Amino acid sequence: MRNTHILSNQTPQQVRGVAIIGASGYTGAELIRILLAHPYVTIEILTGDSSAGKDIGEIYPHLRFKNLPPLKKLEEVHPALVAGSGIDLVFCCLPHGTTQTVIAGLPKHMKVIDLSADFRLADPAEYAKWYGHAHQAAELQKEAVYGLTEIVRGQIKDARLVANPGCYPTSAALPLIPLLKNSVINHDIIIDSKSGVTGAGRSAKQPNLFTEIDGGMSAYGIANHRHAPEIEQTLGRAAGKNLKVTFTPHLIPMSRGILSTIYVQLAGKNTADDVRATLQKTYTNEQFVHILPAGVAPTTHQVRGTNDCVIGVFADRIPGRAIIVSVIDNLVKGASGQAVQNMNVMFGWPEETALQMSAIFP
Amino acid sequence: MRNTHILSNQTPQQVRGVAIIGASGYTGAELIRILLAHPYVTIEILTGDSSAGKDIGEIYPHLRFKNLPPLKKLEEVHPALVAGSGIDLVFCCLPHGTTQTVIAGLPKHMKVIDLSADFRLADPAEYAKWYGHAHQAAELQKEAVYGLTEIVRGQIKDARLVANPGCYPTSAALPLIPLLKNSVINHDIIIDSKSGVTGAGRSAKQPNLFTEIDGGMSAYGIANHRHAPEIEQTLGRAAGKNLKVTFTPHLIPMSRGILSTIYVQLAGKNTADDVRATLQKTYTNEQFVHILPAGVAPTTHQVRGTNDCVIGVFADRIPGRAIIVSVIDNLVKGASGQAVQNMNVMFGWPEETALQMSAIFP
Amino acid sequence: MRNTHILSNQTPQQVRGVAIIGASGYTGAELIRILLAHPYVTIEILTGDSSAGKDIGEIYPHLRFKNLPPLKKLEEVHPALVAGSGIDLVFCCLPHGTTQTVIAGLPKHMKVIDLSADFRLADPAEYAKWYGHAHQAAELQKEAVYGLTEIVRGQIKDARLVANPGCYPTSAALPLIPLLKNSVINHDIIIDSKSGVTGAGRSAKQPNLFTEIDGGMSAYGIANHRHAPEIEQTLGRAAGKNLKVTFTPHLIPMSRGILSTIYVQLAGKNTADDVRATLQKTYTNEQFVHILPAGVAPTTHQVRGTNDCVIGVFADRIPGRAIIVSVIDNLVKGASGQAVQNMNVMFGWPEETALQMSAIFP
Amino acid sequence: MRNTHILSNQTPQQVRGVAIIGASGYTGAELIRILLAHPYVTIEILTGDSSAGKDIGEIYPHLRFKNLPPLKKLEEVHPALVAGSGIDLVFCCLPHGTTQTVIAGLPKHMKVIDLSADFRLADPAEYAKWYGHAHQAAELQKEAVYGLTEIVRGQIKDARLVANPGCYPTSAALPLIPLLKNSVINHDIIIDSKSGVTGAGRSAKQPNLFTEIDGGMSAYGIANHRHAPEIEQTLGRAAGKNLKVTFTPHLIPMSRGILSTIYVQLAGKNTADDVRATLQKTYTNEQFVHILPAGVAPTTHQVRGTNDCVIGVFADRIPGRAIIVSVIDNLVKGASGQAVQNMNVMFGWPEETALQMSAIFP
Repeated sequence: MRNTHILSNQTPQQVRGVAIIGASGYTGAELIRILLAHPYVTIEILTGDSSAGKDIGEIYPHLRFKNLPPLKKLEEVHPALVAGSGIDLVFCCLPHGTTQTVIAGLPKHMKVIDLSADFRLADPAEYAKWYGHAHQAAELQKEAVYGLTEIVRGQIKDARLVANPGCYPTSAALPLIPLLKNSVINHDIIIDSKSGVTGAGRSAKQPNLFTEIDGGMSAYGIANHRHAPEIEQTLGRAAGKNLKVTFTPHLIPMSRGILSTIYVQLAGKNTADDVRATLQKTYTNEQFVHILPAGVAPTTHQVRGTNDCVIGVFADRIPGRAIIVSVIDNLVKGASGQAVQNMNVMFGWPEETALQMSAIFP
Repeated sequence: MRNTHILSNQTPQQVRGVAIIGASGYTGAELIRILLAHPYVTIEILTGDSSAGKDIGEIYPHLRFKNLPPLKKLEEVHPALVAGSGIDLVFCCLPHGTTQTVIAGLPKHMKVIDLSADFRLADPAEYAKWYGHAHQAAELQKEAVYGLTEIVRGQIKDARLVANPGCYPTSAALPLIPLLKNSVINHDIIIDSKSGVTGAGRSAKQPNLFTEIDGGMSAYGIANHRHAPEIEQTLGRAAGKNLKVTFTPHLIPMSRGILSTIYVQLAGKNTADDVRATLQKTYTNEQFVHILPAGVAPTTHQVRGTNDCVIGVFADRIPGRAIIVSVIDNLVKGASGQAVQNMNVMFGWPEETALQMSAIFP
Repeated sequence: MRNTHILSNQTPQQVRGVAIIGASGYTGAELIRILLAHPYVTIEILTGDSSAGKDIGEIYPHLRFKNLPPLKKLEEVHPALVAGSGIDLVFCCLPHGTTQTVIAGLPKHMKVIDLSADFRLADPAEYAKWYGHAHQAAELQKEAVYGLTEIVRGQIKDARLVANPGCYPTSAALPLIPLLKNSVINHDIIIDSKSGVTGAGRSAKQPNLFTEIDGGMSAYGIANHRHAPEIEQTLGRAAGKNLKVTFTPHLIPMSRGILSTIYVQLAGKNTADDVRATLQKTYTNEQFVHILPAGVAPTTHQVRGTNDCVIGVFADRIPGRAIIVSVIDNLVKGASGQAVQNMNVMFGWPEETALQMSAIFP
Repeated sequence: MRNTHILSNQTPQQVRGVAIIGASGYTGAELIRILLAHPYVTIEILTGDSSAGKDIGEIYPHLRFKNLPPLKKLEEVHPALVAGSGIDLVFCCLPHGTTQTVIAGLPKHMKVIDLSADFRLADPAEYAKWYGHAHQAAELQKEAVYGLTEIVRGQIKDARLVANPGCYPTSAALPLIPLLKNSVINHDIIIDSKSGVTGAGRSAKQPNLFTEIDGGMSAYGIANHRHAPEIEQTLGRAAGKNLKVTFTPHLIPMSRGILSTIYVQLAGKNTADDVRATLQKTYTNEQFVHILPAGVAPTTHQVRGTNDCVIGVFADRIPGRAIIVSVIDNLVKGASGQAVQNMNVMFGWPEETALQMSAIFP
């Protein structure tokens, strides 16, 4: 039994209607899974161009059941559809690069949480460099709040447009930001990240076939992944100056989960224990960030299906260095869960609403 | 948003305390996962002999977190521990064969749901034949109700001791019982079942190592598995006469899920459509049993982490035969979820309480 | 050490040149893997329309290495390419339905082994029914030998065109043909087959993504799979009369391997021991077919990467019935390995040449 | 077709008899798989204490078949057994710590390749520190050659006792040794390694159950793994001075394969291209080490079941740094394959004998 606010709730909350644009991908489905358990939200609109006219159960059989609340059929995205509805917030789950004009076309009174990368980079030049074209909604880009909830929840509360952080950046930024802010580490940072395959999305691509993935692993996007500038922007803000990181993502034969192994140089006389203490202090009142005691390493099994981030800190054999291991579920804290967490902040609800699930293991 | 009874609940429910005996196995951990979300239950006692003195988080790191309600340390099983407590119900998750004397030693006012096989077979001779020794609690064996919730919830309501059904039997009995009761099929039944590896439990055995399982599959217990008499007892009751079935279990390289492919002979002029219609009629008001439309096959992905059973029915190419495919999560509807469902019935709570989760996919 | 014919070979064999048409799929890659170890074969031509101009190492990095014999670049398929070459045999690995005109265009002196389904069904009406169009090379269809090596090697020796059997049919026919020929079983046969995902090929399809397959299983093509008529044709020839079978394929989260669980009715007073004895007698001198002793069940791990078929036989609990479990590697004995075995027969080489590899486990 | 030395061999080789002590583990089974294809070796003795009296096929069904050469039953290890035989070489596959007295008891004329860690560390103090007890065969420890074949084949040729390198060290040392020898990099090295689960061996341990591993990953032995001093010893010899490395191993849900991502600092004005060029030059005539062109990353799929090591080199985004990715099959080049390679050197046979297999993919 949980002593949740929900049961003891005295002041009835206003129910909010939301739309999920691009509901046919994995982040869309995961949003539905989470929001079905949300006491103050109704899903009013689902869009998915290639799936328009279908029930969600036809494209996601695990969301088919009669004991779930009924959902509307998927529709084609068009501005009027959303604009004319009474919904309060739009989750935008479209592929990177396709979302700027869609969001620009939404009425200004609607809040927006964008799960793509389109509004994450604040610098137009940086965006153009990594995505190969000028940003198509430059004003919105300036306005967007990069939504790492634990770090900037004050800004999120008042934001109209939240750029939901990427999965790799979330796994790296949660441990690193407090260390940079408190000058516990210097700026020489190596992030070796391993991800499950859901990060690659649901579109049919030969390299992501079961038979191509099962039983093997590989590095990809080495020194060239679009999450690198996103990480650097985030860490640079914490450090108060520009920095560059080494970042290598890997594809692991499992569906969900990111594990980032982070190699840091300790500033001054700091030790791994200082790193751990700083993180413990920073996150002591946070529901979703967990700092493990010395000697204990996290596993992605701990966070499968949850909005948690678990972090372990270790002294390296080489003096002056520490190794940080951070795990999240890339679809939850790395995408749809953090999006719901941000929505909860935006609407003034308890941040953990609909996010108190235990992990599924085994 | 769900319009659940929980939110609109007008009459506060009495909170019940429960014990989980044998909490260190997978069914114990899964019970904890489910009960943590149960609004009317507190877990008062956890036992696990080899883990006594430990926090649950030490043996199940996914249950470690600060945002979960605190749980007591694991203790050794001994009758006085439970007897002297004020708990209302005991979940018994001990290995087969070890549970009879433990349950016999419990005070009579405590309700018991036993997840082992010890009280499933009603016939002492059959028990002795399959388990190699006389039953050690013969009076209790007579009293125990075989707890397929959808089939005998009336008896469960008044039971003191529920023998929670096995995973394979649940997957087979839910589709077959209504067909036998309504004489839609005859008694020539072949059940070809495929199971994920959690069915083998958490004890360290070489054949269940990752490296022994991954990338391969096998049949086991062919024509000789202990679930065969359990299935036959259940189906025999529905048919009104003894029957024997062909049953072959297989071990599949995945963690959760059972898929049973069932080959039946149609009685009289019945067709596969009659089979489907009978099941739809039987289960139309059931929350957890779902009959798919013609042409649609279930997948275990649909039920991962949920208490659902999904059933598809197909006409065979050979006239007079039908093929039924049934899926469950062996740890939920096949074990701990059905146990909670039975508890809900026993305490008069809505049957779906704490069981309304969506499946985790991917 | 093996005392192979290769080392002690006294009469040098003529080296033969072969072409692989459609080399970019899994069966093509597997043919290359096997043929690279073949002492009497050189691969002269590789075709793959969408991969034309590439090295095989670009589309199959595991075939990239400098310590392998050099292979020619992939070319586009066109009749003149093959016709004008001096090659002796063509392996055709094109998708079903695209291969008939290609093979019809080859010079008559070239031997052909077709790994598609195009020439497997001998009856033009049956072909048209299952594939939706009239056969486009009806004369060749008549001439083709259905190449289950152990069963018809005499015909294969003299064939010009061999239709290489399907994977499911091979797993079912090897145990069932001797039993039908010897009237050990009657004609009531249920085949419940489970396959790894390589059977679905290498083209990019959403349902075959890692994330859609991992951690779950399903039945498909229930009572409606194109291998059903192929199985029936093969078994009908052995039985001496037409018969129909129940056949259900399943998709299992692993890459290689088929396991078929076959439910048979014993003819007359035959027992499971008679079934086993018949199979042992039939296959006693066969290198690739292995009948396990009573009580031992096969696993697909035993045959991963090999041309073997392993069969176990069990008495059912219901008198008069037996359960047969048969395993193969669908890409080897179920495709490219049997193709090489057939080539060895056609050229008069020892049948096991290049096929004596041990299984890869774990 | 391969133009192998085997076929064209003019001078018949002397056949050598070998023993495999500790044949019941994965490295033992893998040795058998490889040696069965070796033209100059017969396996004369197999030992395995807990499996004594059994056929290898009872503990490894994939080695059961009639078309393989017959193998003797497993026996208990005792010195007289091996000493009294006429064998020429002993492969010792016992667990770490148990092998020193066994090897010390072997006749001096027998060559020994030890696959455990017992003779890898040359410094007695270092051994005692990491393994918790003094070395029990100190003289042998001095004599043992650390058998990275490509690096020290001259010493291996004349060695009596070869300490076969560990899997992680092999994956790291092959790329790093030439770079240190040629001063292309400095001594600040971070090795982030990911391994399949076979590295954990075949003994029954709860953390290695399928259900504990599947679908998740973790780091382990962080800054504290016994392969760290082994790596440092090897790299220190190449660098000509002692050095320390950062080394973090991870457990990945797959059976075979190691991928090491190595972060290096370039010495002087060297670039990633210089790193690649140095490796290409070093390994240009090596059969088993493959340096990929710029922009191409390796995958463990490329080496599954083979003795190959594949290496890719990438410039980091931070000037002065490079990222090296190296893959091997931990059971082959990381254990039994390199052992056979070393045996080939010791007996003067072509180094690739029995090691020319292609990778199994998918």
